[in-house]
Amino acid sequence: MNKEKIILAYSGGLDTSVILKWLANKGFDVIAYVANVGQNEDFAAIEKKALATGASKVYVEDLRKELVTDYIFPALKANTIYEGTYMLGTSLARPIIAKRQIEIARKEGTVYVAHGATGKGNDQVRFEFGYYMHMPEVKIISPWKDPEWLSQFEGRSDMIAYAQKYGIPIKASTKKPYSEDENLIHISHEAGILEDPSKRCEEDVFSLTLSPQKANDKETLLTFEFKDGIPVSVTNEEDKTVVTDPLEMILYLNKLGHDNAIGRVDMVENRYIGIKSRGVYETPGCEILWKAHHNLEGITMDKEVMHLRDGLISKYAELIYNGYWGAPEFKMLTAAFEQSQKNVSGTSKVVLYKGNVIFAGISSPVSLYNEALGSMDKAGGYQPVDCKGFININAIRLMASAKRDS
Amino acid sequence: MNKEKIILAYSGGLDTSVILKWLANKGFDVIAYVANVGQNEDFAAIEKKALATGASKVYVEDLRKELVTDYIFPALKANTIYEGTYMLGTSLARPIIAKRQIEIARKEGTVYVAHGATGKGNDQVRFEFGYYMHMPEVKIISPWKDPEWLSQFEGRSDMIAYAQKYGIPIKASTKKPYSEDENLIHISHEAGILEDPSKRCEEDVFSLTLSPQKANDKETLLTFEFKDGIPVSVTNEEDKTVVTDPLEMILYLNKLGHDNAIGRVDMVENRYIGIKSRGVYETPGCEILWKAHHNLEGITMDKEVMHLRDGLISKYAELIYNGYWGAPEFKMLTAAFEQSQKNVSGTSKVVLYKGNVIFAGISSPVSLYNEALGSMDKAGGYQPVDCKGFININAIRLMASAKRDS
Amino acid sequence: MNKEKIILAYSGGLDTSVILKWLANKGFDVIAYVANVGQNEDFAAIEKKALATGASKVYVEDLRKELVTDYIFPALKANTIYEGTYMLGTSLARPIIAKRQIEIARKEGTVYVAHGATGKGNDQVRFEFGYYMHMPEVKIISPWKDPEWLSQFEGRSDMIAYAQKYGIPIKASTKKPYSEDENLIHISHEAGILEDPSKRCEEDVFSLTLSPQKANDKETLLTFEFKDGIPVSVTNEEDKTVVTDPLEMILYLNKLGHDNAIGRVDMVENRYIGIKSRGVYETPGCEILWKAHHNLEGITMDKEVMHLRDGLISKYAELIYNGYWGAPEFKMLTAAFEQSQKNVSGTSKVVLYKGNVIFAGISSPVSLYNEALGSMDKAGGYQPVDCKGFININAIRLMASAKRDS
Amino acid sequence: MNKEKIILAYSGGLDTSVILKWLANKGFDVIAYVANVGQNEDFAAIEKKALATGASKVYVEDLRKELVTDYIFPALKANTIYEGTYMLGTSLARPIIAKRQIEIARKEGTVYVAHGATGKGNDQVRFEFGYYMHMPEVKIISPWKDPEWLSQFEGRSDMIAYAQKYGIPIKASTKKPYSEDENLIHISHEAGILEDPSKRCEEDVFSLTLSPQKANDKETLLTFEFKDGIPVSVTNEEDKTVVTDPLEMILYLNKLGHDNAIGRVDMVENRYIGIKSRGVYETPGCEILWKAHHNLEGITMDKEVMHLRDGLISKYAELIYNGYWGAPEFKMLTAAFEQSQKNVSGTSKVVLYKGNVIFAGISSPVSLYNEALGSMDKAGGYQPVDCKGFININAIRLMASAKRDS
Repeated sequence: MNKEKIILAYSGGLDTSVILKWLANKGFDVIAYVANVGQNEDFAAIEKKALATGASKVYVEDLRKELVTDYIFPALKANTIYEGTYMLGTSLARPIIAKRQIEIARKEGTVYVAHGATGKGNDQVRFEFGYYMHMPEVKIISPWKDPEWLSQFEGRSDMIAYAQKYGIPIKASTKKPYSEDENLIHISHEAGILEDPSKRCEEDVFSLTLSPQKANDKETLLTFEFKDGIPVSVTNEEDKTVVTDPLEMILYLNKLGHDNAIGRVDMVENRYIGIKSRGVYETPGCEILWKAHHNLEGITMDKEVMHLRDGLISKYAELIYNGYWGAPEFKMLTAAFEQSQKNVSGTSKVVLYKGNVIFAGISSPVSLYNEALGSMDKAGGYQPVDCKGFININAIRLMASAKRDS
Repeated sequence: MNKEKIILAYSGGLDTSVILKWLANKGFDVIAYVANVGQNEDFAAIEKKALATGASKVYVEDLRKELVTDYIFPALKANTIYEGTYMLGTSLARPIIAKRQIEIARKEGTVYVAHGATGKGNDQVRFEFGYYMHMPEVKIISPWKDPEWLSQFEGRSDMIAYAQKYGIPIKASTKKPYSEDENLIHISHEAGILEDPSKRCEEDVFSLTLSPQKANDKETLLTFEFKDGIPVSVTNEEDKTVVTDPLEMILYLNKLGHDNAIGRVDMVENRYIGIKSRGVYETPGCEILWKAHHNLEGITMDKEVMHLRDGLISKYAELIYNGYWGAPEFKMLTAAFEQSQKNVSGTSKVVLYKGNVIFAGISSPVSLYNEALGSMDKAGGYQPVDCKGFININAIRLMASAKRDS
Repeated sequence: MNKEKIILAYSGGLDTSVILKWLANKGFDVIAYVANVGQNEDFAAIEKKALATGASKVYVEDLRKELVTDYIFPALKANTIYEGTYMLGTSLARPIIAKRQIEIARKEGTVYVAHGATGKGNDQVRFEFGYYMHMPEVKIISPWKDPEWLSQFEGRSDMIAYAQKYGIPIKASTKKPYSEDENLIHISHEAGILEDPSKRCEEDVFSLTLSPQKANDKETLLTFEFKDGIPVSVTNEEDKTVVTDPLEMILYLNKLGHDNAIGRVDMVENRYIGIKSRGVYETPGCEILWKAHHNLEGITMDKEVMHLRDGLISKYAELIYNGYWGAPEFKMLTAAFEQSQKNVSGTSKVVLYKGNVIFAGISSPVSLYNEALGSMDKAGGYQPVDCKGFININAIRLMASAKRDS
Repeated sequence: MNKEKIILAYSGGLDTSVILKWLANKGFDVIAYVANVGQNEDFAAIEKKALATGASKVYVEDLRKELVTDYIFPALKANTIYEGTYMLGTSLARPIIAKRQIEIARKEGTVYVAHGATGKGNDQVRFEFGYYMHMPEVKIISPWKDPEWLSQFEGRSDMIAYAQKYGIPIKASTKKPYSEDENLIHISHEAGILEDPSKRCEEDVFSLTLSPQKANDKETLLTFEFKDGIPVSVTNEEDKTVVTDPLEMILYLNKLGHDNAIGRVDMVENRYIGIKSRGVYETPGCEILWKAHHNLEGITMDKEVMHLRDGLISKYAELIYNGYWGAPEFKMLTAAFEQSQKNVSGTSKVVLYKGNVIFAGISSPVSLYNEALGSMDKAGGYQPVDCKGFININAIRLMASAKRDS
């Protein structure tokens, strides 16, 4: 009898290695799937380890380019930010991982998938919603919500024992006293010693950004070109480096952000499941990109479009954070944001310096900015006396209420 | 026959001085009203100048304390920010100026008021809505929308000529090549040489903040205590300075913000009347306060309250920006924001350094943060397996749509 | 050893009777709690049956008055309606039932409560959220989600067998081929033969309303008086009946609604858990009340308040439908709606006729309606020429976009 | 020297006839433009009158088909309704009238247009915004906001005198003591004797609908087919009449609505300019269409899409009411509503009877309704026990708040 194939999202770490073996021991034909979303890893070593641990096959998939164009850029178009602070680095990478996992499952002819996300976090939700949206008939093995697994593995020491029993190599390096998740967009640090929000995060936690103290001590001037809300090039005005490829651009911005201490965030956020969680994030490149883009909206976006959009950002961010990328209501909002970005085109200059992303000029061939209209000194295309009517009319209902309430 | 009294919002500058004389020449008994909202001025000199220019009486009103408690603090409670960027420094000071002006009109027994705001900006709207809301029967003289005035004064040179004719002293100091408005909250710079948004603002424009380059080169650690969304004390942990008086606190934060390059903003914003306008702002103290407050919300505010609130910020900011402080819909939203701030109480620490306001720890006796619940390592108050049901149930509709669309 | 007390929400039907005995057989001291929310029942018989089935004590609680003043009226103030159609009759009654159940638990000194709601519906959620919000430490026995119960009782026949075994009387009356839930607000009909939404609901399903065909063939004119959004009296202009007591008013309106075929709704709605469900509702009295109230808002509510409120109704209805009555975000919105209802005071007349609730006149001592202002014929308090400025100013940004896009 | 051409929106009534002559007397070459949007008029007579009054040319444009497909259908897709009551009959017809007027102006090579809307209403705004959006450089003559006109024509009698002086025929028929505006969608009645909202509207005001008393005394069953939110056919099940042409469908529904007393509304609404106004409307066909469409959404629209959409209806209605059809923010919302209507396809049956539009069955090949899932009796695609996790997880934050607040 043939074994059932199962596609396991595999990272090479202790958890997913033990899961791999455990699934194999349960009789599955385990196919390891390693998603390269920009994390700093030795993918060849991971592949080798997966095979050594019992995988019948390994897929190492470079999803980075698609992550930029199909996930980061749509989020950028909406200026998406969660709870006013978090740029959704992890949230944006999960749906693409789930999508490719299902594509592999289809290719391999199975409906079984597995992941190693914990039973207390957001990622389990994002993975599983992704699976369900791409394959409603999917069967999900989620060990950290599986009573059998949970009774067998109460903590890390049980997993280490299991790994030793089956000869799974464990990294010699001392484990950091907190968790991390890294991709093209950011690195997150949470849990462990970071769980106490009354304590400031230690400097040695940060890995993608220098501190403002150690950052470059001179300004870096960048010139972005945008087309309909999407960056098409960035130029470093100092050395005239020009980057146009989307993936290369993010990588380049991450490097500049690193050197200039851009993109650190420390916050207590609300997980989907109603638990508060402290997260420390470094988002060097996207922080620059978000600001350059938003600055350009100033001259290219209609006022009422902007205000309508601003009122919908928190909903969109909530959907992405909660794993609803691709859900019907996500598509509805996306259609609106897409429309809002038509003509967000032109040039946006920013200066980077010690944690600051400074406005350094915007211009656009499709600008709505009209110097003559706005000027206090020049006569523009309308009569100031028109404002009298504007005010009087808008005041009619204010006067009515005021009369009543006095 | 008695002259009609008129209450003129008087700044001591060329415009309102000429308006004062012009109103007097038209037969009004002009009462000058000087609002001290924290701008850097010699109020005794202004008073003297008003009388010399023809005012029958001068009111110099110190509105600073009320500005903090009744305008800044409510805005803080809503994390109010306009178009994602502007902290509404001018917008918040206008309604209190209008309110006191009407109180003086009532005291003086007149329905006439006047102001010198231009016919292209937001302030004319904010003043006049304020007047109408506090005195629906008010009669407003607004020279910059008055055809008679406009035909007489086409530009600055006409005003200078008028001033010279009537012996109104003109400041010898060279006028800056742009406009400024200053109060406790901020200083704005706009118009003139700043009108071209493709050019970065020159360093010498800034007056309330040092540049990041020139700012303190060591960190400043502050500890705020909040009660129901309002700061009740701030402690400078270096020298143990403690400030509890609301006005003193804002002044103190402005000084610290100055020294640490906090609160610069440069943007193209949308005026109420549909014109885009470039504004450069310095909001040193409130930038610190806003961030410290928002950080504390992380552990003290319910998730759904925060998300609901976040979706309403842009509407509230729009109302304040457009001059609707005190309007019926403003009161409706204010009631919601007030409710949202119950229990936003506790301690919030921030570090200031070269333009950065860095999270340095939050704690609260009414915290909703539960380390055990959020921890990946510890068993909390619920079973991870519950998440299975949570996900399955939320996925029902996603699967239904996915099945249909596949 | 003392048995643990448990408070069971008891209806007297087969399900909760079997649950009662099952809980007793499991060793609980079962206290039956019967909530009178206006359903048509013989409460003395229910009490007797509970004792006969094994309850140690029975609470029969008349919650009707509080249901009107503390649940119906707040919902009325927000014009609450779910998915544009459903008036939330069941949703509004659940939180008060849960609240009293917890009060009884506290009085009896236990943390155990039980209910008989199914595992597929909304009511389980509403009950349990209510319990958790009033007693976070509560322990809930919910048989229809309990694996032990579910394995023992696969269907109705198992329950009948269990009832027969323990001598629990079963109603001789033939069970209707669909489910019903009745209270002061409405009766719902769903499930069974109603599950096919392609079929029109049969006339004999309806019990609280006559059909339009059989309804009164003459008009009934009612005059309501409202004070800050709440009805303080209703007068039947035909016979001059006047009702002022809140509970009596709802009962009286239900009678009039019945006679005039008011308040039938048939729809497919979305349950909280993501399942679509067909519901047939009769809401005779509240349909009248909602319309009379909304009509009066026309002259007493500020435009912008109304528009802001209208955009929040669906969120509020969703919260109530989903069981979040009393949750933090519910309180936040409630504060806003309360504020919005100040001055919704005055007289509202409606005519009832064969399913129609017809506007028959509104007036108010605090009206914002100004006949002179609105009139096309009379000169009002403003100049039509002001509209020129109003339009020109509002058109500035429209022209800017139009120029760009042409 | 050639005269300037001007395109006048001409109705054939007293006002626009006097305006026509007045413009001609001012030296314009007046081209009369008569828009047929479904009003009950003798267009040949109007054309003749325009020429007799001094027009150099007349355009009579049948805009009815485009009104249905490009204006009514998009509004239907959003379930648009203003202030919970008004179906925007006038608002929807104005933008198409303005659009064609500008097209004619371009064809005739002029930038001058004129209209006869009053200076107190909404229509002036809708016309003029429409002009500006289609021709930013337009020059608008709006007599009722023109000081010269206003000084010449203080009331109706001045216009009659002017008409008599220039031989303009005045309708012999007695003018109704209120204003009306009719098109395919509705007829409105307002002003004059209707201005007092405390008085019920007299029966003889209504012209497009019978009263419930006089309406058909038997039910009419209609079957609609919808495709992506748009009706593609309606069948009268009694006589098997089938209508598929959009314009014919609206005309047919208007007739059925008339016979069955459907679509009467009486309300006090808020005009854009902040004035409250009493309007009586008859919208027979669209009322039927709106309800049939909304019913079908019950089985074909995702829950979260519906709730998101419901929260945006009031904004969309406000935009349409205020004349912003085609504005940038209108386009943004339209994109979202378009997306929301994908798959709103299938069959919706309604019964008409004496003012009632009764749900009579819905079905769809792309239904999201799953009888097995929703059923209380049958096992569906998920385990009821999953709801336990769903509730427990959602309750985590409720318990946290409850603990804090207790």
